[in-house]
Amino acid sequence: MIKVGIIGSTGYAGGELARLLLQRDDIEIKWYGSRSYTGQKYASLYPNMYKIVDEECMDDNMKELAGQVDVVFTATPQGLCASLVDEEILSMVKVIDLSADFRIKDVSVYEEWYKLTHAAPQFIGEAVYGLPEVNRDKVKTARLIANPGCFPTCSFLSVYPLVKEGLVDPGTIIIDAKSGTSGAGRGAKMDSLYCEVNENIKAYGVGTHRHTPEIEEQLSYAAGRPVTISFTPHLVPMNRGILVTAYGSLTKEVTYEEVKAVYDKYYEDEYFVRVLEKDVVPQTRWVEGSNFADVNFKIDPRTRRIVMMGAIDNMVKGAAGQAIQNMNLMFGLPENTGLKQIPVFP
Amino acid sequence: MIKVGIIGSTGYAGGELARLLLQRDDIEIKWYGSRSYTGQKYASLYPNMYKIVDEECMDDNMKELAGQVDVVFTATPQGLCASLVDEEILSMVKVIDLSADFRIKDVSVYEEWYKLTHAAPQFIGEAVYGLPEVNRDKVKTARLIANPGCFPTCSFLSVYPLVKEGLVDPGTIIIDAKSGTSGAGRGAKMDSLYCEVNENIKAYGVGTHRHTPEIEEQLSYAAGRPVTISFTPHLVPMNRGILVTAYGSLTKEVTYEEVKAVYDKYYEDEYFVRVLEKDVVPQTRWVEGSNFADVNFKIDPRTRRIVMMGAIDNMVKGAAGQAIQNMNLMFGLPENTGLKQIPVFP
Amino acid sequence: MIKVGIIGSTGYAGGELARLLLQRDDIEIKWYGSRSYTGQKYASLYPNMYKIVDEECMDDNMKELAGQVDVVFTATPQGLCASLVDEEILSMVKVIDLSADFRIKDVSVYEEWYKLTHAAPQFIGEAVYGLPEVNRDKVKTARLIANPGCFPTCSFLSVYPLVKEGLVDPGTIIIDAKSGTSGAGRGAKMDSLYCEVNENIKAYGVGTHRHTPEIEEQLSYAAGRPVTISFTPHLVPMNRGILVTAYGSLTKEVTYEEVKAVYDKYYEDEYFVRVLEKDVVPQTRWVEGSNFADVNFKIDPRTRRIVMMGAIDNMVKGAAGQAIQNMNLMFGLPENTGLKQIPVFP
Amino acid sequence: MIKVGIIGSTGYAGGELARLLLQRDDIEIKWYGSRSYTGQKYASLYPNMYKIVDEECMDDNMKELAGQVDVVFTATPQGLCASLVDEEILSMVKVIDLSADFRIKDVSVYEEWYKLTHAAPQFIGEAVYGLPEVNRDKVKTARLIANPGCFPTCSFLSVYPLVKEGLVDPGTIIIDAKSGTSGAGRGAKMDSLYCEVNENIKAYGVGTHRHTPEIEEQLSYAAGRPVTISFTPHLVPMNRGILVTAYGSLTKEVTYEEVKAVYDKYYEDEYFVRVLEKDVVPQTRWVEGSNFADVNFKIDPRTRRIVMMGAIDNMVKGAAGQAIQNMNLMFGLPENTGLKQIPVFP
Repeated sequence: MIKVGIIGSTGYAGGELARLLLQRDDIEIKWYGSRSYTGQKYASLYPNMYKIVDEECMDDNMKELAGQVDVVFTATPQGLCASLVDEEILSMVKVIDLSADFRIKDVSVYEEWYKLTHAAPQFIGEAVYGLPEVNRDKVKTARLIANPGCFPTCSFLSVYPLVKEGLVDPGTIIIDAKSGTSGAGRGAKMDSLYCEVNENIKAYGVGTHRHTPEIEEQLSYAAGRPVTISFTPHLVPMNRGILVTAYGSLTKEVTYEEVKAVYDKYYEDEYFVRVLEKDVVPQTRWVEGSNFADVNFKIDPRTRRIVMMGAIDNMVKGAAGQAIQNMNLMFGLPENTGLKQIPVFP
Repeated sequence: MIKVGIIGSTGYAGGELARLLLQRDDIEIKWYGSRSYTGQKYASLYPNMYKIVDEECMDDNMKELAGQVDVVFTATPQGLCASLVDEEILSMVKVIDLSADFRIKDVSVYEEWYKLTHAAPQFIGEAVYGLPEVNRDKVKTARLIANPGCFPTCSFLSVYPLVKEGLVDPGTIIIDAKSGTSGAGRGAKMDSLYCEVNENIKAYGVGTHRHTPEIEEQLSYAAGRPVTISFTPHLVPMNRGILVTAYGSLTKEVTYEEVKAVYDKYYEDEYFVRVLEKDVVPQTRWVEGSNFADVNFKIDPRTRRIVMMGAIDNMVKGAAGQAIQNMNLMFGLPENTGLKQIPVFP
Repeated sequence: MIKVGIIGSTGYAGGELARLLLQRDDIEIKWYGSRSYTGQKYASLYPNMYKIVDEECMDDNMKELAGQVDVVFTATPQGLCASLVDEEILSMVKVIDLSADFRIKDVSVYEEWYKLTHAAPQFIGEAVYGLPEVNRDKVKTARLIANPGCFPTCSFLSVYPLVKEGLVDPGTIIIDAKSGTSGAGRGAKMDSLYCEVNENIKAYGVGTHRHTPEIEEQLSYAAGRPVTISFTPHLVPMNRGILVTAYGSLTKEVTYEEVKAVYDKYYEDEYFVRVLEKDVVPQTRWVEGSNFADVNFKIDPRTRRIVMMGAIDNMVKGAAGQAIQNMNLMFGLPENTGLKQIPVFP
Repeated sequence: MIKVGIIGSTGYAGGELARLLLQRDDIEIKWYGSRSYTGQKYASLYPNMYKIVDEECMDDNMKELAGQVDVVFTATPQGLCASLVDEEILSMVKVIDLSADFRIKDVSVYEEWYKLTHAAPQFIGEAVYGLPEVNRDKVKTARLIANPGCFPTCSFLSVYPLVKEGLVDPGTIIIDAKSGTSGAGRGAKMDSLYCEVNENIKAYGVGTHRHTPEIEEQLSYAAGRPVTISFTPHLVPMNRGILVTAYGSLTKEVTYEEVKAVYDKYYEDEYFVRVLEKDVVPQTRWVEGSNFADVNFKIDPRTRRIVMMGAIDNMVKGAAGQAIQNMNLMFGLPENTGLKQIPVFP
């Protein structure tokens, strides 16, 4: 039995962690942390778990928590996880951080994009970027996981094989992403009201979204040299789902079969990445509620560009599911344990 | 290993049966029947199951199918199941019919409301109305299950305890129901187009909906005398979910505690029926993707009426989930096997 | 040129008032009042009016405002309008109050349901309940209009003819109403977030909604005796629209033609009330963006009840449009001036 | 009084033409053409117009129609308009074609992308591409208007000033567009069902969408040389609206002010094009129901690219509204006659 604590359990990502973990027999959630709702019944905030969770919300006392569990998930605002970890904590429990605190190796880049002073830069080096499809072995032995952002997960998985194999010029990559509204969190903001989001689509954070340097760093590793991209997220009137449409110039003339072979090289053994059949586009509805990432591509000979597409559920592969995938690896379990849910449709 | 066939596997209810059954280790789906798509890859119609289901759709040859499986689910238009079953079939396989063919004991009532001639009236008598919360023992030994309709399931569970205990005058019952759009099926009709359903709510089948006599029959058993109700369904712009708001006159003055005790009497041992806490209203979002039915009530002393409310996922407790609940009972399995999914939110 | 002030211009109803009034040549909005956004550009809050409105938001200084305009609309929280009016104000400007402050003649009923002490009970008597279809003549000469609530408008118009003519027993009336989310206002509340409202339907205020006594009072006038009803509103995932499904017992056997004649008697000369053709149900999409109220009915001989249905746009006929309809009457203009918008679809 | 005929009046664009034209006093619609619904009451298909339109649908007999009206709108499938016009018709009435038949000057390009043989290539030359912001003078004297496509309108208006002024390298332009579902039309297709579109986003027609050559042709005129672009549309779960996010490489270093001045140069006198304030992004909700096109841009110094954004209502500026704007010009009326609707929100 793996004992789990969740700090930030009342946000949407925290709720999804609880939902997914509660369906397992080998996991026990010992701590539903919530600074805002300490002392309140967890199921009063997530009535979907009524009669399933009877616990009350706890505070975020990491020291106390660390003594009771094997792994802590932090699904908290930027900066909080960094302020809670220290050597003692990391020697007691594994930490899987769903925030951005440990995703970016260059602390000055983090501080510039996030407008924060990093509270624990000494752990950035050892933190493992928790994208198992790329860093599986490192994840297995990590004490501290930087769980990838939702946009970076979907963006990276969509373009990675072609960048890695040099078929796309990384300097030409433009990523146009679309996200459901759960990504904006459960905080009460006018911009997130039903009537403001419904019947609307807009871009946001144009040229300034914080996931940009995260995507660039990972693509730079793949390309073997620094990569700068354009990244524009959009808010879509739906609860869940991220769709990425990425554009890049081909470095040489290629056939469908050649590109397909490159995707297959990287993904055919990956349980969670599904390379779709020819001319089938990724759609968020076909991954909703699951940890799958569906990817595909279309060569455009007129422009010598390639369109690379991917779809994930931002709450699962883009947050809680991927965090659990990392946990499974860290505890020596089959990677897809508790994550084989078939997407819910309609 | 239980071998399963699904006739009508490409409709929404059939797709949900497949989705739920595929997540189990003790079930093998041997036959994805579809008159419209015979020979086509099942996953091309339900890409959520891509890389999970490789089979092609089969026809609806019940004789051939019955020789290969232990149980057949029919998720088909009214009249089809009745035309497929005979004594030989029923001696070979268990049949769980998600259509209305065997739900109504009085064949003339069926024929009047459904405008069909019943093709197999000789089996109506033995068919068991598959609402386990009421007919659990009969379900266990049945050969033929009439799986309840979505509105009847939610309506009946909401009002049953009070009718059974005589606290509500059954002749005063008015049921105002609201359903998501998946209930209208996957057929291409102008009325079901996105732009026609979105940003709209309407009643339909006012005074004539076919689920009316089904609800009345079940309530009549509970009341011990014939019951006639008003029933009005509405179409809501959402994919899944049914909400029932039922009104009835109290037969005597009662307190909250007395009524709560009555609900608890019938439901406290029921895994799938959750009686909510005082003043908490059922909401479809808190049951979505699950087999739960959430119910509650509000006494209105001003009018001496009581408002009885219930919420289910029409695709799960209102169709595929309940069918599997029945299957579990018929095969001697724990009733909630494969049905413990926590509702998906958001 | 009629000079207009709006107090509470930045809420949804205030925004709708502005939108509708700005399209007229005979109106000038002089004052966009907003306690929360004083000094901020109005179009920054309603960018749909960018390049159309250049004004900044003003405070709610009624004295100053009253000297500059001919009519003031108050689209404000309960209690505010009552605190702003006095004899001097009412002698200077006409006031059309979109809140509930002057809707209920019995101040004790108001104070009980609204949990407020009424600040200006001396004006309740002269305030005219601004439902032109019933009180047209009184509206024309009023100084102070209590603009009806959204649910009361739709509920009352749906059942009024039959109650007035005694065809329905008023004591049996049950009103099940469904509203879009704009009715919840533009305030930042968790319950109004996109992800909380989308893919969900729920009842709220069961047995306690403040519109109940308002509906009862108006029905009591129609019936000629005190009427108590059951009223249950529901929140529907759409921006605009109210649908009412009302149930009542018939006092005698009637034909379709007889009931149709009664509806026509009251509504055939009403521009804004459309009695639909036989078996056509009211739908919110067919009135969206307009001041129309669509009504119809269905006799249910099985239960000797009648189902009375109505649909309005809660922001127009349920708020701003009706307020303007009242204004038109008060200024001697044709009642539908500036209100002939055809419903927007899809 | 301008007499109008609409061929294809029962599709969504035809319905929007009727809705907008019926609100004018100077227009009379004489002919509601509909091949599918000839003889049926128009308001039975568009109940929003109940009690406003009493006419029945007519066939598409262009000869008969041309004798009765001053202008014909064709809101019909590709190829139909071309098959209906001839010299006699064009000498009798003005024709505004909302299909693509006359948008592309090179008939071979049309035939290649539309997989049709053009039935009237002799009129392609004289047909005027009805984008008043560019071709206003030609529109005024045209007999035959090729009303622009929805995506081309929004795409072109977003990037036109910068291409025209040479600030963006046209060969680098990538247009990622998002559309509401009304663009898919009112035909009953499984892919357009509520449950298929809701809670989903997908790309479609990747690299092959028919609006591509239309955009390219217009951009080529602006650039003064042939332009090839990448264009990818996406289907968004909302009724109306198109958002364009376009990317291009800057040809030189520019400041915000310089680029703003370029947009203003082309649009500050345009009633329908609103250049938003700095850092304000276009959103479809702020143009819904109106003929406005909101545009803005963001310089990204990191990548030396510029992001150009635009939002329109696909049914208005993207179809019916623009067609009426053209009609106004052709009849010597102020261009915004009957088109000053303020966007509806929420």
